[in-house]
Amino acid sequence: VQHIILVLSGKGGVGKSTISTELALALRHAGKKVGILDVDLCGPSIPRMLRAQGRAVHQCDGGWVPVYVDQEQSICLMSVGFLLENPEEAVVWRGPKKNALIKQFVSDVAWGQLDYLVVDTPPGTSDEHMATVDALRPYGPLGALVVTTPQAVSVGDVRRELTFCRKTGLRVLGVVENMSGFVCPHCAVSRGDLAGGGRAGWDSPGPAPR
Amino acid sequence: VQHIILVLSGKGGVGKSTISTELALALRHAGKKVGILDVDLCGPSIPRMLRAQGRAVHQCDGGWVPVYVDQEQSICLMSVGFLLENPEEAVVWRGPKKNALIKQFVSDVAWGQLDYLVVDTPPGTSDEHMATVDALRPYGPLGALVVTTPQAVSVGDVRRELTFCRKTGLRVLGVVENMSGFVCPHCAVSRGDLAGGGRAGWDSPGPAPR
Repeated sequence: VQHIILVLSGKGGVGKSTISTELALALRHAGKKVGILDVDLCGPSIPRMLRAQGRAVHQCDGGWVPVYVDQEQSICLMSVGFLLENPEEAVVWRGPKKNALIKQFVSDVAWGQLDYLVVDTPPGTSDEHMATVDALRPYGPLGALVVTTPQAVSVGDVRRELTFCRKTGLRVLGVVENMSGFVCPHCAVSRGDLAGGGRAGWDSPGPAPR
Repeated sequence: VQHIILVLSGKGGVGKSTISTELALALRHAGKKVGILDVDLCGPSIPRMLRAQGRAVHQCDGGWVPVYVDQEQSICLMSVGFLLENPEEAVVWRGPKKNALIKQFVSDVAWGQLDYLVVDTPPGTSDEHMATVDALRPYGPLGALVVTTPQAVSVGDVRRELTFCRKTGLRVLGVVENMSGFVCPHCAVSRGDLAGGGRAGWDSPGPAPR
């Protein structure tokens, strides 16, 4: 794999999975081969977004075969959602078990030749994130895409996320401010200020840490 | 403490902390003494919502003194946000360390006489949730308030959350469907269908598991 991009956010519900999915689709559109690794073990939503729910993961000589979402096999996907017998079952796992599965997702999956690997993470900075960074580090430099919304609570979380990147040596590729505007479907007036004032609500996080 | 209410959601960003805060304020309005325990260690947002950021936790003979947010001392609050030297620092902790702090929050804090303890949890069903349930179980029956939004992805997560409640023996007190409607501030038209159709978008989860 050439490039590894971790999609991070401190807060949940800011659109990490949507942005991971759209990033992967855009990269495919640019002619790249893309893998998506969904390490949100308690709430995997990527399979639903790519309409791949209920698909099965098979074994081959090289390990688990990820799920391909298109005929040209340019996007492949691995998620705990494919391994659960009942997708409505809660995944009630403590840290060590989660860490072991993430290691397997990296080393035991036959990802094949990829241009980009997009990793969708759960909210926060905890076991899943450390396990992912540890497991992927041997495969090349890691980049982080931090997602936030304009609200002050979310921006506070993004600051914490940036210090996490600095501590673990992740290169911050960019910060996405999602849900900045809203267009009312009734009166078609666009409001940039609904979610707390957009860019005005927060000062720049400064130059990206290296 | 008379009643313990855990505020849970599978997905982040559905308004758990807001609902925990408003529930506590409503209970205080009804003349109750309320404690809020914020076990979202990676993204504590309750201190900000109650304007208690930067307040310090002191030691007394009975343990840590929680932060009181009003003069009548009818709402007290404990959060990892009070223990960090720099609130913008990321809390990069693995499971066992988180579990130990949650145990301390329950046993080493001088909560005093409370009518209600409201527990704000991080998204998912993981270490924090199991540690909280284990630590609080000796103090009385635990009730769960599950928060969701109308989107299909969030409703799928709520189903997982309900199976978690069943597995751990939490009594589900109710499900809150947050953000069901939206009133455009420009044209004042209320839309119930923006977020996926409201109640029409999901079928009832059935009677609450006991």
